[in-house]
Amino acid sequence: MILTVTLNTALDITYRTPVLVPHATHRVSEVVERPGGKGLNVARVLSALGHRTVVTGFAGGRTGDVLRELLAQCGDGRTGPSRSSMTSSTRPVDALVPIAGSTRRTIAVVDEATGDTTQLNEPGPTVSPAEWSAFLSVYDRLLTGADAVALCGSLPPGIHVGAYAELIRRARGAGVPVLLDTSGEPLRRGVAARPDLVKPNAEELARLTGSREPLRAARDARRRGAHSVVASLGADGVLAATPDGIWQATPPAPAKGNPTGAGDSAVAGLLSGLVERLPWPARLSRAVALSTATVLAPAAGEFDAEAYEDLLPRIAVTEHQAA
Amino acid sequence: MILTVTLNTALDITYRTPVLVPHATHRVSEVVERPGGKGLNVARVLSALGHRTVVTGFAGGRTGDVLRELLAQCGDGRTGPSRSSMTSSTRPVDALVPIAGSTRRTIAVVDEATGDTTQLNEPGPTVSPAEWSAFLSVYDRLLTGADAVALCGSLPPGIHVGAYAELIRRARGAGVPVLLDTSGEPLRRGVAARPDLVKPNAEELARLTGSREPLRAARDARRRGAHSVVASLGADGVLAATPDGIWQATPPAPAKGNPTGAGDSAVAGLLSGLVERLPWPARLSRAVALSTATVLAPAAGEFDAEAYEDLLPRIAVTEHQAA
Repeated sequence: MILTVTLNTALDITYRTPVLVPHATHRVSEVVERPGGKGLNVARVLSALGHRTVVTGFAGGRTGDVLRELLAQCGDGRTGPSRSSMTSSTRPVDALVPIAGSTRRTIAVVDEATGDTTQLNEPGPTVSPAEWSAFLSVYDRLLTGADAVALCGSLPPGIHVGAYAELIRRARGAGVPVLLDTSGEPLRRGVAARPDLVKPNAEELARLTGSREPLRAARDARRRGAHSVVASLGADGVLAATPDGIWQATPPAPAKGNPTGAGDSAVAGLLSGLVERLPWPARLSRAVALSTATVLAPAAGEFDAEAYEDLLPRIAVTEHQAA
Repeated sequence: MILTVTLNTALDITYRTPVLVPHATHRVSEVVERPGGKGLNVARVLSALGHRTVVTGFAGGRTGDVLRELLAQCGDGRTGPSRSSMTSSTRPVDALVPIAGSTRRTIAVVDEATGDTTQLNEPGPTVSPAEWSAFLSVYDRLLTGADAVALCGSLPPGIHVGAYAELIRRARGAGVPVLLDTSGEPLRRGVAARPDLVKPNAEELARLTGSREPLRAARDARRRGAHSVVASLGADGVLAATPDGIWQATPPAPAKGNPTGAGDSAVAGLLSGLVERLPWPARLSRAVALSTATVLAPAAGEFDAEAYEDLLPRIAVTEHQAA
C-alpha cells in the first residue's frame, strides 16, 4: 500500500467562462467539483495505475463532507482514464482525520477561449494541537502497512512549519521510504530531516538553494539532506540527482494543455516506480510520461491513459557524467 | 407579514485579495459566507427595519444546507446593523422549498486596495416540474397571510420564462400587492401580468422599453402593464412613475462604496413603505436612504443604520409636472 498525506486537502471547484474580466460580473457556464490537494491527486493517479493507496490528512465541515463523498465515488462516471481503469478495489482508501474547521475550497476559473486559468485558493482551516496529535497516531498506524509515503502540499494554519520534518523522521523510524513535495520553509525544514526523495519544481528548487542552475541546485539540495532529488522542469522533463547517478528525462515534444496536476502525476510515477523497484531511468520515464499525459488530458488533473502508453517508450533519458 | 420569493437563492461567498490578476494564482486572505439571492437580501433589510418577513423559493444540496443554517443565524454575531437590530422575532422565517439540485454559489472577489469586485455566479440547479408545483402550493398558502410579496432575481434552469407572470396573477388573485424585481424576458412577461410595482435599474428599464430616457421609459413600462414603476438610477436616486404622480428622489451627495445589495435595500424601503401606507414621497425617501446607506456600509449587502437615520431627512424629493 502507498500512503499519501495531504494536510491541507481542498474541494477543487472549476468554472468555465468565455474570458475573465476583472471587476466584471460573470455567469459561469460549467461547475465541476473534485477532491483536491496534491496528495489526493497523487493517490488518484496511483489508483489508476493499479496501486493500492490510502489517503490521510484532514477533512472537516460541509466542504469536507463533499470531498469525502467525491473521493468515495472516484472513477464513477468520470471523464478521463479513471472511469475505465479505476475500480473500487484500486480506489484510494479514505483515512482522513476529521477536524472542526471547514476544508478549504480552491476555485479555478478557466477562460474557454485560451484555457488560461485564474486560481483562487482559500487558506484552509486552522488545525488544533489536539487534531494534530490525533493525526500523528493515525499516521503512525498507517505507516506500519505502507510500502512508501508521500507528503504533499502546503501546511494549513495551526500546523508548525517543522511538521513535515517530524513526519519524515517518523517514516524513516518505521523504515518506510518517504517522498516530500512541498515548498518554502516547510521544504527547507523537511530536506534537513533527510527524506528519501524530494520533487521540487525549478522555482521551488531555486528558492531552496539560491541557484537557478538545475544541476547545481539539485546537488546542493542533496547536500542539504535529500537522499535523491527529482526536479520537474516543465517542458524540459525532469532532472534527477541520486546516489546512483544523474539523469535527465525529456518528453518527445513539449505538450500543450493544462499543467494542473502534472507535478502530482510525476510524483505518482516516481512513487510507483520506487515500490516496483524499477531502475531510475524507468522511474523517470514513467514520471515524465504521466505528467505529459496529464497536460494533454482534457480534464484538469486527470491523465490521458492512451497518451501515457504512447509516450512511455518515447521518453529520452540521458545520463550525466557526475562531475 | 411580508413575503419575499427567491427562486434562485445563492450561497454568497466573498474573498479578499490584494488585486485580482487574470491567469495568476491567488491566496485569498478572507472568506465570508452569507445567505444570498435578492429576495433574501430584501428580507434581511425588512427584518432589520422590524418587519416580520417570510422567505420562500428553493434550496438544495450541501450549499442549500449551509444557506439555511446561515439564515437561521441571521444577525447573530454579524457585523453591520443586523447584529444590533435583528432579533429572532424579526429574523426572516425560512419557508424555502427543498429541491434535489444544489443551491448555486456566487463568488465575489474584492480587491483590497480599491474595493472593486469581480463576480462569478453559478447558474443554479435545474428545478423539476414536480418541485415547481410543490413551490406553487407553498406560495399560495403563504399568500393568505401576506401584506405584500416581492418576486426577486433571476430564474433557475427548468423554470419557464413566464413563471413570474404566473406568480403575479396568483398574488393579484389573492389580493396581495406584488413587487417584481427582475430583468430581461422574465421582466417583460411579468410586467404584462400587471404587477403593482416594478423596480428596474436604468439598464433593465432601457432593455424593457428601448428608451434610455428614464421618464419616458418609466411611463412606457406603466403602459405595458406595471401599475407603478420605480427606476433606480444609481447616484441619481430613484424616479417613480405612479398613478398618483411622478417623483424623483435623490441623495444629498453621491455615495462612495460597494453598491452590492443597494437595489435590494431600495426594494425593502418601497415594500415597508407600502405596507405602512406611507405617501409616495416618504416611500421614495426611505428607499433612497436605505440604498445609499447600503453603499456606505463596510460589509457588502448590509446597510449602515446610523447613516440611514442621518440620510432619511436629507433626501430631496421633487414632483414632476405630469405631461
